[in-house]
Amino acid sequence: MTYAQSVINGDRLALARLLTQVENNAPDGRTALIELFPYTGKAHLIGVTGAPGTGKSSLVNQLALHYRKAEDKRIAIVAVDPSSPFTGGAVLGDRVRMRDLTGDANVFIRSMASRGSLGGLAQSTANMAQVFDAAGFDIIIIETVGAGQSEVDVARLAHTTLVVEAPGLGDDIQAIKAGILEIADILVVNKADRPGVENTEKALKSMLDLAHPTERVFQHHGSTMRVAAPAQPASSAPMWIPPILRTVSTEGKGIVELAEAIARHVVHLRQSGDWAVRERARLEVELDALVRESLMNRFKESVPQEMVEDVLEKVVQRNISPWEAVKILMKEK
Amino acid sequence: MTYAQSVINGDRLALARLLTQVENNAPDGRTALIELFPYTGKAHLIGVTGAPGTGKSSLVNQLALHYRKAEDKRIAIVAVDPSSPFTGGAVLGDRVRMRDLTGDANVFIRSMASRGSLGGLAQSTANMAQVFDAAGFDIIIIETVGAGQSEVDVARLAHTTLVVEAPGLGDDIQAIKAGILEIADILVVNKADRPGVENTEKALKSMLDLAHPTERVFQHHGSTMRVAAPAQPASSAPMWIPPILRTVSTEGKGIVELAEAIARHVVHLRQSGDWAVRERARLEVELDALVRESLMNRFKESVPQEMVEDVLEKVVQRNISPWEAVKILMKEK
Repeated sequence: MTYAQSVINGDRLALARLLTQVENNAPDGRTALIELFPYTGKAHLIGVTGAPGTGKSSLVNQLALHYRKAEDKRIAIVAVDPSSPFTGGAVLGDRVRMRDLTGDANVFIRSMASRGSLGGLAQSTANMAQVFDAAGFDIIIIETVGAGQSEVDVARLAHTTLVVEAPGLGDDIQAIKAGILEIADILVVNKADRPGVENTEKALKSMLDLAHPTERVFQHHGSTMRVAAPAQPASSAPMWIPPILRTVSTEGKGIVELAEAIARHVVHLRQSGDWAVRERARLEVELDALVRESLMNRFKESVPQEMVEDVLEKVVQRNISPWEAVKILMKEK
Repeated sequence: MTYAQSVINGDRLALARLLTQVENNAPDGRTALIELFPYTGKAHLIGVTGAPGTGKSSLVNQLALHYRKAEDKRIAIVAVDPSSPFTGGAVLGDRVRMRDLTGDANVFIRSMASRGSLGGLAQSTANMAQVFDAAGFDIIIIETVGAGQSEVDVARLAHTTLVVEAPGLGDDIQAIKAGILEIADILVVNKADRPGVENTEKALKSMLDLAHPTERVFQHHGSTMRVAAPAQPASSAPMWIPPILRTVSTEGKGIVELAEAIARHVVHLRQSGDWAVRERARLEVELDALVRESLMNRFKESVPQEMVEDVLEKVVQRNISPWEAVKILMKEK
């Protein structure tokens, strides 16, 4: 039996091994992914992102517990943590968070290293999600730390993206919010028992108003341009305005309401056709990444490494520019 | 006169326009970059990164003020901010931070949008740094918000990377630190007048001990392996152990000491040969990115868009896997 077949049959050990192969981009992993692909497309991918200190991990933990107990769903958690070569893997994570979920065969938690080449992280995460999807997990929660471009790219994989905030996380967090708000389907103010929760909520509301205005304001070279915001789409499905929810994840408060909001978002995605749109966009990104990788592999096969080194040395010496170097390597006239 | 020549001659307006062209990856910008390239390689690139709420912007501001007043250096600041399509640019930033530096012709501040394709951000930042370098700026400070992969990639551009922390930023920040520590040449505990500064410093110190241990500990599938850490390198240059410095940037405290630590790092880079190593690595990354871009452009010219759409549709329908789709598009047997 192949790894892929074992995974489909629910073999947990085979699943763990395959995930490692997929994360390492091993040839066996790729073969299995091809075999598993027809079984994918059923799971609900939930992205959970936000700044450090917001208590995301604990929120993910509570959400997973809820889906297990109240809805009997099979849950996979992919935690994308910044990692360290000297520890050889994700730093905190597994042990802490698994305490409540350990021993449950319908929960699978996986920490991912965020090292590796540019673009590799989003691709690896997508591949791991496909494995969990094919293995029959109903809900795949992808948790990212931070608010950089890679988090946004990982969030793009998800059907539903939760952006988590917490009161009192400092001043320049506003800048983060504005960038991350666009990917939010649901806004969560966690640690809502802390002082300042009203301010955080108010700030989020006013930024939401900016994102879903009655008129749109563009600023361009100092001049301000106002145009009418697009009207409600002609389709019968209403627009989705991200709700703002309060939770205290350490006490499990607000988790039921959060799960309900997520369920409403799924209904919205299905009715509006956005589910299919997001699926297609996700596969398009994946296809694009694979094409790029193939092109680069072909390039490396056709251009000797010594030639690359030689041309690089000329760039280092400022004899030629990087653009001229590319022309030489690509054998252009 | 070309834009590039005007920029070299110190024309500020030409510089601003060229930066826009470079950020937008416009053909004129590229032409100018090729012309400017021989004039690059002189500036000191300082990366400043860290979690939100650490007061990075204010620290960068103070550092720039110091270099202006005490050392009469020409300073460029590239602030890589998460941005929003609905504001059309970086959110906070320029106005707030420029207050102290406005009107000084030897300071140039530029905010960058962090939107755009994967990899694009690091590339755009590298290109803008080249423009400032050729324009004769002595120090280029690249400030990144957050702690994701893209920040790490941007930090790789720098000769000296400052990682900024602040007391009391929550619990799961530890995970961030571990990931970001590896890129730190200097650790700054900003807001050092706040309670908890000793704890923050202690945590950083113990993580530094992990990164520069007398023995290295590997954990692998539950078992722990210990090997001796590599001895001091045989060269005469001592290893660089990142110093930990306290600052209160809002009051300008600790800035002189920080500038001194940065100066010591430059001496270390020069004496150890690491300056040349970092320069070469940076140009190698740039060359690699340009090759990838050229390959993709060539692919798009040779494969009709309808064919790509057609193949994507088959993937969406789960008739073929993304890997089979790539084979078809790459015309492999």
